[in-house]
Amino acid sequence: MRAEVPASGVENPWVEEVQISGHIIDSLILPKILDLITAGRGSFRIKQITIGQARTDPSFALVEVQAPSREVLQDILAQISDHGAVPTALQDCTLVEADMEGAFPEGFYSTTNQRTEIRIGGRWIEVGDQEMDCGVAVNPAGTEARCVAMSDVQKGERIVIGHAGVRVFPHQRATQRQDFEFMNSSVSTEKPKGVAIRQVAQEFFRTKAAGGKSLLVGGPAIVHTGSGEHVCQLIRRGYINTLFAGNALATHDIEQSLFGTSLGVHLEHGGLAEAGHEHHLRAINRIRRVGGIRNAVETGMLRSGIMYECVKNNVDYLLAGSIRDDGPLPEVITDALDAQRQMRTKIRDVQFCLMIATTLHSIAVGNLLPAWVKVVCVDINPSTVIKLSDRGSFQTVGLVTDVEPFFRALVTELNALESGR
Amino acid sequence: MRAEVPASGVENPWVEEVQISGHIIDSLILPKILDLITAGRGSFRIKQITIGQARTDPSFALVEVQAPSREVLQDILAQISDHGAVPTALQDCTLVEADMEGAFPEGFYSTTNQRTEIRIGGRWIEVGDQEMDCGVAVNPAGTEARCVAMSDVQKGERIVIGHAGVRVFPHQRATQRQDFEFMNSSVSTEKPKGVAIRQVAQEFFRTKAAGGKSLLVGGPAIVHTGSGEHVCQLIRRGYINTLFAGNALATHDIEQSLFGTSLGVHLEHGGLAEAGHEHHLRAINRIRRVGGIRNAVETGMLRSGIMYECVKNNVDYLLAGSIRDDGPLPEVITDALDAQRQMRTKIRDVQFCLMIATTLHSIAVGNLLPAWVKVVCVDINPSTVIKLSDRGSFQTVGLVTDVEPFFRALVTELNALESGR
Amino acid sequence: MRAEVPASGVENPWVEEVQISGHIIDSLILPKILDLITAGRGSFRIKQITIGQARTDPSFALVEVQAPSREVLQDILAQISDHGAVPTALQDCTLVEADMEGAFPEGFYSTTNQRTEIRIGGRWIEVGDQEMDCGVAVNPAGTEARCVAMSDVQKGERIVIGHAGVRVFPHQRATQRQDFEFMNSSVSTEKPKGVAIRQVAQEFFRTKAAGGKSLLVGGPAIVHTGSGEHVCQLIRRGYINTLFAGNALATHDIEQSLFGTSLGVHLEHGGLAEAGHEHHLRAINRIRRVGGIRNAVETGMLRSGIMYECVKNNVDYLLAGSIRDDGPLPEVITDALDAQRQMRTKIRDVQFCLMIATTLHSIAVGNLLPAWVKVVCVDINPSTVIKLSDRGSFQTVGLVTDVEPFFRALVTELNALESGR
Amino acid sequence: MRAEVPASGVENPWVEEVQISGHIIDSLILPKILDLITAGRGSFRIKQITIGQARTDPSFALVEVQAPSREVLQDILAQISDHGAVPTALQDCTLVEADMEGAFPEGFYSTTNQRTEIRIGGRWIEVGDQEMDCGVAVNPAGTEARCVAMSDVQKGERIVIGHAGVRVFPHQRATQRQDFEFMNSSVSTEKPKGVAIRQVAQEFFRTKAAGGKSLLVGGPAIVHTGSGEHVCQLIRRGYINTLFAGNALATHDIEQSLFGTSLGVHLEHGGLAEAGHEHHLRAINRIRRVGGIRNAVETGMLRSGIMYECVKNNVDYLLAGSIRDDGPLPEVITDALDAQRQMRTKIRDVQFCLMIATTLHSIAVGNLLPAWVKVVCVDINPSTVIKLSDRGSFQTVGLVTDVEPFFRALVTELNALESGR
Repeated sequence: MRAEVPASGVENPWVEEVQISGHIIDSLILPKILDLITAGRGSFRIKQITIGQARTDPSFALVEVQAPSREVLQDILAQISDHGAVPTALQDCTLVEADMEGAFPEGFYSTTNQRTEIRIGGRWIEVGDQEMDCGVAVNPAGTEARCVAMSDVQKGERIVIGHAGVRVFPHQRATQRQDFEFMNSSVSTEKPKGVAIRQVAQEFFRTKAAGGKSLLVGGPAIVHTGSGEHVCQLIRRGYINTLFAGNALATHDIEQSLFGTSLGVHLEHGGLAEAGHEHHLRAINRIRRVGGIRNAVETGMLRSGIMYECVKNNVDYLLAGSIRDDGPLPEVITDALDAQRQMRTKIRDVQFCLMIATTLHSIAVGNLLPAWVKVVCVDINPSTVIKLSDRGSFQTVGLVTDVEPFFRALVTELNALESGR
Repeated sequence: MRAEVPASGVENPWVEEVQISGHIIDSLILPKILDLITAGRGSFRIKQITIGQARTDPSFALVEVQAPSREVLQDILAQISDHGAVPTALQDCTLVEADMEGAFPEGFYSTTNQRTEIRIGGRWIEVGDQEMDCGVAVNPAGTEARCVAMSDVQKGERIVIGHAGVRVFPHQRATQRQDFEFMNSSVSTEKPKGVAIRQVAQEFFRTKAAGGKSLLVGGPAIVHTGSGEHVCQLIRRGYINTLFAGNALATHDIEQSLFGTSLGVHLEHGGLAEAGHEHHLRAINRIRRVGGIRNAVETGMLRSGIMYECVKNNVDYLLAGSIRDDGPLPEVITDALDAQRQMRTKIRDVQFCLMIATTLHSIAVGNLLPAWVKVVCVDINPSTVIKLSDRGSFQTVGLVTDVEPFFRALVTELNALESGR
Repeated sequence: MRAEVPASGVENPWVEEVQISGHIIDSLILPKILDLITAGRGSFRIKQITIGQARTDPSFALVEVQAPSREVLQDILAQISDHGAVPTALQDCTLVEADMEGAFPEGFYSTTNQRTEIRIGGRWIEVGDQEMDCGVAVNPAGTEARCVAMSDVQKGERIVIGHAGVRVFPHQRATQRQDFEFMNSSVSTEKPKGVAIRQVAQEFFRTKAAGGKSLLVGGPAIVHTGSGEHVCQLIRRGYINTLFAGNALATHDIEQSLFGTSLGVHLEHGGLAEAGHEHHLRAINRIRRVGGIRNAVETGMLRSGIMYECVKNNVDYLLAGSIRDDGPLPEVITDALDAQRQMRTKIRDVQFCLMIATTLHSIAVGNLLPAWVKVVCVDINPSTVIKLSDRGSFQTVGLVTDVEPFFRALVTELNALESGR
Repeated sequence: MRAEVPASGVENPWVEEVQISGHIIDSLILPKILDLITAGRGSFRIKQITIGQARTDPSFALVEVQAPSREVLQDILAQISDHGAVPTALQDCTLVEADMEGAFPEGFYSTTNQRTEIRIGGRWIEVGDQEMDCGVAVNPAGTEARCVAMSDVQKGERIVIGHAGVRVFPHQRATQRQDFEFMNSSVSTEKPKGVAIRQVAQEFFRTKAAGGKSLLVGGPAIVHTGSGEHVCQLIRRGYINTLFAGNALATHDIEQSLFGTSLGVHLEHGGLAEAGHEHHLRAINRIRRVGGIRNAVETGMLRSGIMYECVKNNVDYLLAGSIRDDGPLPEVITDALDAQRQMRTKIRDVQFCLMIATTLHSIAVGNLLPAWVKVVCVDINPSTVIKLSDRGSFQTVGLVTDVEPFFRALVTELNALESGR
């Protein structure tokens, strides 16, 4: 039986009671939910509130949501459910079979990147492969649920419809804060960076020590700015387990290895060698002629650089294509959907992700990662960092700084951590 | 017989004479060439120089290039040939058959985006489909030449090797300057914009009046910033003949049409409707359910917006995919090489190109366009404009300004031009 | 009698009870205060909480603050008092005579830009001339209090010491939000600007209609970008009552009027006239020769432009000097303290302030304005807007857009508002 | 006798012959001059040209400038004279007595920052105290000339009028290039920084070794970003001889020394201590109470930090005030003209200048420095660097990077240089 009923009052006839728990004050969850209710043209009545007396104590609130129509009420519930507001009148989720391939049924539940459970037969089941902007598919037995991308929907799959029977557990800032103290105002360029870089080093160090997996998502500026050797060190020392990049990073890295230039700039003396753009193309052409990066390493043609170290150290690399690519290198996955599918597989067990100097790949990976994976995004351009946080990847800690000095300092900090053992 | 001979002197034993003509002083071509020779560890002797006495008079220079080795000389000649320096000792170009598919033979001539001719059997032939970073393929009869991308090379095709027998006609700033006076320091945000916008309007107006073709390359900020209706007007009035965009522009446009929001922002009152990201997905899902944008227009589901106007006004649109796409919409070309090939076809007869608010698509299109197509790149972020000019698309005029006011002023200027008739 | 007492427990022996009221949930005040207590190494116990059931209902909380030492407790109380937390154990404020000129006694109470009251003889007195980063001086009778800048302290003045007997009424976001809906994420460049500009127009319109005073704080880019005539219109139509600027805005405006250039750029056709920098100097020299801007207008030398309109329309202008000034113009106040003092006088009755294209003057004025004055800061560079909000001028609404199109659209919106009457 | 005569032809009746010598091709001086002639509505005839056959050989050109009127001709000559074009018909400069204090006579010659000579009695005299945007004053004997700022003009001083008898020796890129190879495209963020930083280190090292004087112009971000200790090292090791800054840098440095915070941020752990802004004020107040920074060091109140090291190591520091200052500190020069005059004195013998993280002070100092002083401007915000080069300080090499890592790397490079001895 539904608790959602027309209220007796005239103006707000539709009502539903929701509960919220956790660090709802400290994490700004309650204010956010109350704000959404009002902004969505509803109103609220706080029926009960218990606020944790210490910072680590959880709080609890019981809120009655009122709305002028059923549609408005549903819209509001949909929004606040993404922030952890769960109707107290429990009900199972609604499942509908997909009537076609590659599209959801109308009214499908659209996922967040937060931990989510759905209720089937009175039991709460955790949703697997959590990823934002997907649907939730349930196996025929109704015992397992997982996120499914729109383009991967199979006809006949059972898909969750609406927000009923779905609950979301928002990632709570309070906890996270101890990890990254510097996250408060991430786009400022006038904050001390030393602390932030040390924390990134600690994250790499802890992840490696715990046998976890770290992912580097990087753009070609890593090579342009002369940071390639720093990244090679991180790879050789086991800090980077997976690399996501595009054709450009790999090509400039290989160009640098074969010709000593990156986009025509001689890295060791900074002068311009204008033939550089030719070098770029010739590097790709040579790799295509030998059939790929791995072959180039094995035949001894490629003897240094980031891609060389990836092959030698079994780093799981993925090169995703884009329409601005020259060539591209044989390993580049030119189909965007293919690339997304392969990235999904490779991020399943990532614990820490460093995104650096690439807007395209950072946003793509940010879309795929669940909220509990720690992400640090480094770029010298504040707008990249702003874009990432504008798009809902709110777990992302942004750091506006320069690529090469960042990596140089990161290696120094890791040296300190290692010798401190 | 080659003019390239070891010189008698000890230090610079290799010599070749080149000639340069055109606006070589005013366009900074001669200084650039002399600079490249010296930077490339060669030296030069100016044997003859005639400088145009008026601005429009062409100049001419005969320069002897000296280098310490044959390799250095070849490198220098390769670089300066891209700026129009042609050896006076004429010879035919060298052709080699491609020995495999999808890669050039070693030593291939790498193209610029400038008008280029190659010499076969003593005759100069113009290279067709001019595009930078390609090779040049010649037909079996040796009567036709065209640019070919690395991934499109067929086994057995005859490919130009080296720089001998190739001459480049650099696009000359002097001429171009009359078109866009504001191009001098394109990344400055402190210049008057009114004049620049008026010149863009004139370019659209002239191109339409002459029956030419204008291309808009746009990003989703067109919709976010509330500029959609301005673009719709440009389309309805025949100023935009081709549209290149990604999944994001089309989706936000359709979301705006179906739900009144773009990425969750209600455009008419600026408030946040947080369900917006759902709207985004639901918009894509609906279009996928009806089989595409064109179907959505024809069935009456989609009744307004940029994509609607494209369908209704026969604008030739191309949506190129990327790894950050949700969905995507059915029309999106998800394979990057496919998208490049289709873009190549559609730009063949473009006279004017406006790139706005998209780095990815702007660079991709900038890579494909020949130097003589006028390009204006508009972005509020100076770094996008800097990136475009850093990458050799030097014909690009950058304008750092805000999208919505830009389009608003553009429409006003076009109104003035039309009523001025 | 003080409530501040060593608590019986060992770890947190010092305790004080504070109360907070207002929109403390919705405005994020309570979470902020709890955060500050914990961050300051204290702990808290919420003794009572009443949350407004509707958005407009005020809330109330009684919180016990605990700290390990008296110093830590004082630090915490100092911080949270700036956010409206008032000790329930009421006491008068402490007053100490200034022992020297131009400096406060140690331990002085440092002001915020929020409405503030101090308690003397059991009565709460409102502090006048509210301004951040000042002290509070009380008249001999103890009946009046006002903010006083450090450099203006007179020996013997009675100055408030510590936070006891001081209460602050934080400006509440909930209320403000209705005015500027677009303020949520002010630095984004991808938001619709039309709505924001319309709201700025409404603010100018309302302020003028109500006989209020609007202040324009502007930089020279107003002239460079060709926006001068828009500003002239705003002045002639009575929307700008006060203008704060520097030597540069006035000089470029006068240069534009006398020579048709601004920093060497001919505004009407965008071309460069390199003699421009000379024009700049010659413009200043001429004004110095006639004794000032007002004289230049009266003698007919200066016949157009922003400064001309200021003189003709009795706009109260103030030109503050800086170390990068050429000249400067005779009216420029070269002493920074003098300039601050005169600005303080002129802003006393300002209701609305538009800051545009100047970091220096915007921050200077932001430092002086009380929190309840509406401020909109417009700049094409996001970093200026970020800097303003980083510095505590949190009432500032930032708009990242281009100057000339902004003014053009603003005038259009004002036309619409006027004709709508 | 003047060569400037009405020409016989109808369209261009006014003619003057000028000569240009030096690296006029390589340094782009000739193209620039021809461009200015045409842009200024004149035309030219190259009567003779000799181009250096090697890079280091000087070139020479004899150019006839034609203009439709005497005024246009004068305008053109004025512009091209700033780039080294000297009329072949030699004449003495024209001198006029200043008729009032603080302003030049009409028609005054306006200086560049290039080495300049004036001709008196047939002899060329070098102008002293070279600075842009000044006039040239000549002593009564006619034997000495020096730049004089507008506000410093004395009644009766003899001032140079017009461009006749003035010749300018433009600083030539060719030479400079060997020092700073990285200067080519200074605003790019995607270039390798390691090389650039090494060259800055070499400049500091060379200047110190040669007994020269290095000037640091710095903003408060030096302290915010945690770079204070790096700067202290540079001071202690004798690399910085003069420091120009504002109230903010000194205050945050002192706040950091007294309270461990800078603008409320604890530098060692990056956390926010919101009382910080109070710390800022309290730091200033304490220094005011003891009468200044020097007293604070001598009494032992101030024991560390940049200002402490300046006092201890006899660094000649100058703090220039601005309207956004709190306090200010007693040493701050609040009058902008006073500050300019004192800066002029202190820069007279500076050989190398590093400007970092301050737009205001960088532009102010850039205005004062002659073109032959090497200047490197470092900022994370590209717009600061763009602004500096837009304003004619073209000798400035810009480096877009982050402050703290820059200084960290700079110290490392200096260590390497020192140990390499």
